[in-house]
Amino acid sequence: MSGWVRIAGLGPGDDALVTPEVSAALAEATDVVGYIPYVARVAERPGLTLHSSDNRVELNRAAQALDLAAEGRRVVVVSSGDPGVFAMASAMFEAVENGPATWRGLDIAVLPGITAMLAAAARAGAPLGHDFCAINLSDNLKPWSLIEKRLQLAIAGDFAVALYNPRSKSRPEGFEKTLELLRDGCEPERLILFARAVSTPEEALRIVPLAEAAPEMADMRTVVIIGSSRTRLLEMNSKPMLYTPRFTPE
Amino acid sequence: MSGWVRIAGLGPGDDALVTPEVSAALAEATDVVGYIPYVARVAERPGLTLHSSDNRVELNRAAQALDLAAEGRRVVVVSSGDPGVFAMASAMFEAVENGPATWRGLDIAVLPGITAMLAAAARAGAPLGHDFCAINLSDNLKPWSLIEKRLQLAIAGDFAVALYNPRSKSRPEGFEKTLELLRDGCEPERLILFARAVSTPEEALRIVPLAEAAPEMADMRTVVIIGSSRTRLLEMNSKPMLYTPRFTPE
Repeated sequence: MSGWVRIAGLGPGDDALVTPEVSAALAEATDVVGYIPYVARVAERPGLTLHSSDNRVELNRAAQALDLAAEGRRVVVVSSGDPGVFAMASAMFEAVENGPATWRGLDIAVLPGITAMLAAAARAGAPLGHDFCAINLSDNLKPWSLIEKRLQLAIAGDFAVALYNPRSKSRPEGFEKTLELLRDGCEPERLILFARAVSTPEEALRIVPLAEAAPEMADMRTVVIIGSSRTRLLEMNSKPMLYTPRFTPE
Repeated sequence: MSGWVRIAGLGPGDDALVTPEVSAALAEATDVVGYIPYVARVAERPGLTLHSSDNRVELNRAAQALDLAAEGRRVVVVSSGDPGVFAMASAMFEAVENGPATWRGLDIAVLPGITAMLAAAARAGAPLGHDFCAINLSDNLKPWSLIEKRLQLAIAGDFAVALYNPRSKSRPEGFEKTLELLRDGCEPERLILFARAVSTPEEALRIVPLAEAAPEMADMRTVVIIGSSRTRLLEMNSKPMLYTPRFTPE
């Protein structure tokens, strides 16, 4: 039997947002490897072994998946959202690069998914309808000074900005500093979307002007989208829609 | 009968990358509205009317969809990729904002899809595994000076950068200027991915260092991903994988 690894994105939560490609890989898999809450989204069945691991052990998890594939198992490594956006794909290639030579002969592919910012943007309207950036606010793997620099450049370029992992219990201060930095560089009317757990039963959306944005509005299940200076709120009869126009004048 | 509009993303081309949510909307629709090649991806069936229109008539197309929904029809507006990323969602909300008041009472939702950069990144490895920007290189709707400014800021921030609509027959010079600008700001070894028509029979991927990148490598069906300074090429036995490590040192 010839093993393989598929690094798959489960989308933001709703099964209706899992691609058929990912579902097919899961149907053929012998093993699923991933962070506890993501593995919990995969249905158990005979012949499938689920391997859950805790957060922040990405390289160990990657090694486990690669070892299993080297033994001939068909392994799906699951991430929430898209595996290539602040998720398992980079960790997998890092592990291969630093691992035994046999791993470079494995059949490895990445299967894309609906990443959190696209699900959040769709639910709110079209805030990413013009040029945008995606920034991971976690400073576990990069210095805070780099995050700050990127935020400032993104504001200077009038990009819309999606912030991943905005705020955890262990580092509540990063998002506070982000809001201060936004207040220095943007007008108080700038629109901010807090989108929590989109497409799950806990989904909660909130759109506020920067002047009313507060650190407690975000947690680790929230994606924050900062509008560009041209992002607008369109009043509809049911709920307002946030969108960034396609056109930017001279 | 109560009409609705779903602004749906068909993903990059392969049906295995269309979400079940979008497939369900298409199954319930009475009308599909969109640009000719995207509507051509929807299977004909009794009871479904397909309305194809040419490129660059986004606001007319939006008005057509909204009119149909106001008459009680169930309308899916199709885009390639994700509708919120350089596609129809913004145009739809623009049309609503500037249209008759009745349109604000319509049931309108955006259904996300796998946008081109995520499909391209997955196929090549994980080049968007760290902070990144998405920039539309078309200057139909914004001044070239703004594109240039955003490119320069993205390079200054050492973001990976996904370029949409890099080059059309009517404006071949933009991507040439982009490459010149990259040569001013980046080292010649900087890795560039040209990903054409990912997940279709015409798929073609090419990874070159900036020094070897040429304007002809891109066309309107190509997404270009410029690596950050830390993006690496990992030699595998089958094909090389492009990835951006999660870790950035001080």
